[in-house]
Amino acid sequence: MNNTVPKTMKAAVMHSTREINIETIPVPQIGDDEVLIKVMAVGICGSDLHYYTHGRIGNYIVEKPFILGHECSGEVAAVGSSVNRFNVGDRVAVEPGVTCGHCEACKEGRYNLCPDVQFLATPPVDGAFVQYIKIRQDFVFSIPDSLSFEDAALIEPFSVGIHAAMRTKLQPGSTIAIMGMGPVGLMAVAAAKAFGAGTIIVTDLEPLRLEAARKMGATHVINIREQDPLNEIKTITNGRGVDVAWETAGNPKALQTALASLLRGGKLAIVGLPAQNEIPLNVPFIADNEIDIYGIFRYANTYPKGIQFLASGIIDTKHLVTDKFTLEDTREAMERALNFKNESLKIIVYPNGSTRVGDNQTDEMKVHN
Amino acid sequence: MNNTVPKTMKAAVMHSTREINIETIPVPQIGDDEVLIKVMAVGICGSDLHYYTHGRIGNYIVEKPFILGHECSGEVAAVGSSVNRFNVGDRVAVEPGVTCGHCEACKEGRYNLCPDVQFLATPPVDGAFVQYIKIRQDFVFSIPDSLSFEDAALIEPFSVGIHAAMRTKLQPGSTIAIMGMGPVGLMAVAAAKAFGAGTIIVTDLEPLRLEAARKMGATHVINIREQDPLNEIKTITNGRGVDVAWETAGNPKALQTALASLLRGGKLAIVGLPAQNEIPLNVPFIADNEIDIYGIFRYANTYPKGIQFLASGIIDTKHLVTDKFTLEDTREAMERALNFKNESLKIIVYPNGSTRVGDNQTDEMKVHN
Amino acid sequence: MNNTVPKTMKAAVMHSTREINIETIPVPQIGDDEVLIKVMAVGICGSDLHYYTHGRIGNYIVEKPFILGHECSGEVAAVGSSVNRFNVGDRVAVEPGVTCGHCEACKEGRYNLCPDVQFLATPPVDGAFVQYIKIRQDFVFSIPDSLSFEDAALIEPFSVGIHAAMRTKLQPGSTIAIMGMGPVGLMAVAAAKAFGAGTIIVTDLEPLRLEAARKMGATHVINIREQDPLNEIKTITNGRGVDVAWETAGNPKALQTALASLLRGGKLAIVGLPAQNEIPLNVPFIADNEIDIYGIFRYANTYPKGIQFLASGIIDTKHLVTDKFTLEDTREAMERALNFKNESLKIIVYPNGSTRVGDNQTDEMKVHN
Amino acid sequence: MNNTVPKTMKAAVMHSTREINIETIPVPQIGDDEVLIKVMAVGICGSDLHYYTHGRIGNYIVEKPFILGHECSGEVAAVGSSVNRFNVGDRVAVEPGVTCGHCEACKEGRYNLCPDVQFLATPPVDGAFVQYIKIRQDFVFSIPDSLSFEDAALIEPFSVGIHAAMRTKLQPGSTIAIMGMGPVGLMAVAAAKAFGAGTIIVTDLEPLRLEAARKMGATHVINIREQDPLNEIKTITNGRGVDVAWETAGNPKALQTALASLLRGGKLAIVGLPAQNEIPLNVPFIADNEIDIYGIFRYANTYPKGIQFLASGIIDTKHLVTDKFTLEDTREAMERALNFKNESLKIIVYPNGSTRVGDNQTDEMKVHN
Repeated sequence: MNNTVPKTMKAAVMHSTREINIETIPVPQIGDDEVLIKVMAVGICGSDLHYYTHGRIGNYIVEKPFILGHECSGEVAAVGSSVNRFNVGDRVAVEPGVTCGHCEACKEGRYNLCPDVQFLATPPVDGAFVQYIKIRQDFVFSIPDSLSFEDAALIEPFSVGIHAAMRTKLQPGSTIAIMGMGPVGLMAVAAAKAFGAGTIIVTDLEPLRLEAARKMGATHVINIREQDPLNEIKTITNGRGVDVAWETAGNPKALQTALASLLRGGKLAIVGLPAQNEIPLNVPFIADNEIDIYGIFRYANTYPKGIQFLASGIIDTKHLVTDKFTLEDTREAMERALNFKNESLKIIVYPNGSTRVGDNQTDEMKVHN
Repeated sequence: MNNTVPKTMKAAVMHSTREINIETIPVPQIGDDEVLIKVMAVGICGSDLHYYTHGRIGNYIVEKPFILGHECSGEVAAVGSSVNRFNVGDRVAVEPGVTCGHCEACKEGRYNLCPDVQFLATPPVDGAFVQYIKIRQDFVFSIPDSLSFEDAALIEPFSVGIHAAMRTKLQPGSTIAIMGMGPVGLMAVAAAKAFGAGTIIVTDLEPLRLEAARKMGATHVINIREQDPLNEIKTITNGRGVDVAWETAGNPKALQTALASLLRGGKLAIVGLPAQNEIPLNVPFIADNEIDIYGIFRYANTYPKGIQFLASGIIDTKHLVTDKFTLEDTREAMERALNFKNESLKIIVYPNGSTRVGDNQTDEMKVHN
Repeated sequence: MNNTVPKTMKAAVMHSTREINIETIPVPQIGDDEVLIKVMAVGICGSDLHYYTHGRIGNYIVEKPFILGHECSGEVAAVGSSVNRFNVGDRVAVEPGVTCGHCEACKEGRYNLCPDVQFLATPPVDGAFVQYIKIRQDFVFSIPDSLSFEDAALIEPFSVGIHAAMRTKLQPGSTIAIMGMGPVGLMAVAAAKAFGAGTIIVTDLEPLRLEAARKMGATHVINIREQDPLNEIKTITNGRGVDVAWETAGNPKALQTALASLLRGGKLAIVGLPAQNEIPLNVPFIADNEIDIYGIFRYANTYPKGIQFLASGIIDTKHLVTDKFTLEDTREAMERALNFKNESLKIIVYPNGSTRVGDNQTDEMKVHN
Repeated sequence: MNNTVPKTMKAAVMHSTREINIETIPVPQIGDDEVLIKVMAVGICGSDLHYYTHGRIGNYIVEKPFILGHECSGEVAAVGSSVNRFNVGDRVAVEPGVTCGHCEACKEGRYNLCPDVQFLATPPVDGAFVQYIKIRQDFVFSIPDSLSFEDAALIEPFSVGIHAAMRTKLQPGSTIAIMGMGPVGLMAVAAAKAFGAGTIIVTDLEPLRLEAARKMGATHVINIREQDPLNEIKTITNGRGVDVAWETAGNPKALQTALASLLRGGKLAIVGLPAQNEIPLNVPFIADNEIDIYGIFRYANTYPKGIQFLASGIIDTKHLVTDKFTLEDTREAMERALNFKNESLKIIVYPNGSTRVGDNQTDEMKVHN
């Protein structure tokens, strides 16, 4: 069954900050319960950029030649002896964190808090800017033909939004404010729409992103360079405030605004990770108004939901993918993501073959090859 | 402010089973916290038909000349002295059960279980087949211009579905089976779609209803005259079963099928009221598979959600309203609802003026005037 | 039935900060659904002290002669015409906030967030340092003979703890840290015990309070003058941290410690109201560890739970009540509460007759009369 | 570290129904993440008796020489190479079902629904009537010195009650009816007390069991031979009904009574497994009163809670253990459990050494050796 799998493959390896070389390395050997994936599309995430520029995130330090990339999809290239849910050739999305299944967090259904998780592109676990990766079968999910590989890779940031929606109990008819329209924020708009939110108010300072948010389902957009977001939210909600707010940008001021925008009994999700530790929050406001605040760390049990929802076609993600690169150009892709935030939204790298011009091609999309 | 409100009005009064006369009665006097509504559209519900044919439902007995109808919408005609959220002329939906606000059920947020509720068209409280009704202001909800009076009346059966969705924790990507495609079942399909259900399987025996279900958002329809519903559900779900099932028809066999169609950990809502009390249920199946079963009685806190969602236009309800009658023809409307289940879905009565040919007019719709 | 109720009564009236006079005022007239209560015991709360010393709490300002006191119990002295659950002479606890029952918060079961609540001793609503108060019948709760009037008054601060326990989903076997052992903190210990918490760690700086906490059920006490609370909590929990933490003192540093003491997925309740608005909180810690933070404002649906639990006798509250005063000495009672925090815990005022020496009399208790 | 572990051990092996022989078999070899337990106490459960008399439960069929027993505790005798939480000699309770950790049920925190669970004494997995068992380390839980081995074995049936309490959201002050006072029912009383239930009403037909229930914490006992349980429950609750009911006996009539005893919005747990499949239930009652029904299958995430609670000493279990047998007398123990239901409650088998006369010895206890 493995006869078409080569022995070696190309990989985009980071040796030091802002240096990525294309190298030839062995294709990984799979275990009994693992699946080998021929990687077809990988999205670039903010955490990839942070490792690329700083060499670390908190206590996670890049200490050896390292491979980035964790938002990925592909085709099954080989399966281990105990794998019976997949066949070679199946199109799949990959959930990038393999959990232990035995700890207290795993047993309680909060496996995103597993202390022993092996997460792609989180040191020392290599990531997906390669031609083949292996992963335990229970983190591989079949996708229907109607779902492109790009969309399948987007299930990862979509999952963050779905998880925030579940934690904040978002429901049809809810009114929500989402701060920050980077890729996570934009997919959070999709999640809010999936959960039926009636009024979706978003903030950012880049017109490109606000426009994309509107196409993803935002009902109101606020450019914080031009408008006071709290005033605007109060105006839009007739002074009532929003039921739910999510901060996705890691910006202290946005977090304070998100909190202040809530009505009594409202719910706040902290999705973005700020650079500083101590952020002043209005504690009497939290107490008097019985606000719930939920920290968000990755996600759990979101992939089937996300796949079903994106496959339904209600969300149009093609406006989200602005740039496409081959694996050879991974470094260029990273640099573009870093330097053209006013031009680029989600950038996809294609480790196998040239950039695909697939279902979600638009006129504005830049194909770099 | 009350100068345009007449002193008397027409009402469709039921004096005995299957007898409804048009009479002139006084327009009700409103209290300080009440709103007078000029009734523009009233849907006919199964409970109206049951009172009309049997004169009772359980312990609720029609003992005096009685007015049916509780799915209604209209315009504000006058407001009490302490009402400040509404102006004369506002377009509104009416939640038909006024609760006490003081009992244990009300205080716990389950006001649908209030023992002192005053519910339109539930003896001895008269209903909405009249030109004007009064109702306490907190059960009146403004509707946007984009929502027709017919849709505003449909918020009532929609609420039952929303309530079932909240009780059974339906989420994006969930797989659901809904048994029975009467008006409540059809609006339950809308609710399932509002909550993001990915696969919506429905059953009925009338092709008309199954076709309407498909237009409302059902992804799979099963005609139980032609197919075994349990087998079909298992086939559609690759043997997995559904996450959630709702029985809306009050049919014992459908209830048993709904239960059997669930996967381990699945959730069942009992929405329909069967005629018989004792129904055999597979209790070891419930225990072994940790099924949750939720009784559904009306709804609570659903109107804002329902209005926001229907106003978003994602659901197309125009296929649901098949017949329109003037108040004078209320009896004919009831008879048609009783006798043409294979031709009619939701029937609307218009107490003020001739039947409106509004936004949701279709070629197939029958206007009886 | 009202024949034994006098026309006038004594009241402890605050005219300006730190001035309380005993005056004769009319006994209130009850409405149809109200109950007149002969007040037997009133606890002094921190909010009473704050009004007494500052004349305001936030936007609530004492602008006229004003009566404090809201933790109270008594006997039914008269009932309105529609009251059928009570008879004259019934022993009762009084929930001090009368809600509207019609607003969105009330309908959702979160009546503590009702914007129109009438709360005893919150301007402009007078409180319970009087001989008789009236209150709507649904906020009156019968107590068994085994429950003293003092304990019945303590249901109010106990309710805050019960509400925090419900919001933070405290369960048998949970490990909890409670910051601040004032009366609210001490009753929070009782609530933690009622919900089955296995390890209850408390902090304060007064040995008297820590000792009382131990008698109420705390398993570990930390004097923050002598020990670093975070280190101690980590040691007690073998480095694991606590499942749940409640801050009851309104102290910023205690709040930061409470947050830091949590394990991944832990839950924090903010019960105490700090004097300053902006408090620096470790936001990356909240996000990375998926902490839940819950603001706590009063309580809802707690009185029946609290009465049943205190009546069960599992908690011994007699160590909590340290001082007893007559109504005439209300001012002295307030001054003692302000100035002897190292000697006094809960102080009870008895508006009718001399201080009762009841079931929960202890040798250490000071009877001031 | 393994030097004191023998190569062979004694086992009580069932060859056919009602036949158990003592045989010598190899001590199991442990894997890297497994712990070898020297079994000190094993409780006899109803499922053991069912296999013993019928050779099967549903689709689980005893097809080879088989070892029963799954409620067990002991001492760590050896640990695998990757085990770091335990040392030889540690006293531990054993959760008897080892789950896969990878399936959908496991990932959602409902690992009791794992289709690949390996559960002690459920064919084909041998049980604990042996001197040594091995088990994966994450299903082993340290117990404090204050907890006897007998109590540690009782954590298993206690877990069923804890799980029912969590599923039915039992809270302090709740009123509960528990049907059937076999060992599971009796430990369910303990669970109800752990969760703070104020009124605990129990039913059975054996005075011995009702008396034990009272000692475990039941506030009201009903002998269904002498009293109508529904009438009694209504009388005890002043006509209100109970908030929560659990059926633990697998008796159809008890289940119907449990359902009928609920107030509006009440919650029913089906704990006992009836012999017949189809049981008539009052479906209109379920719907009209918005009853929740929860199937209960084993438990998840209960051991730490159960250990902490039993160790607190609030529940006195010594009245529950009525008989003690050595491993050699396992057959006699089973026969006594079958034939003396009016004399015996929980029977403990001691696989290593003679029956221990430990902490929870009472005068009435029968030591068979």
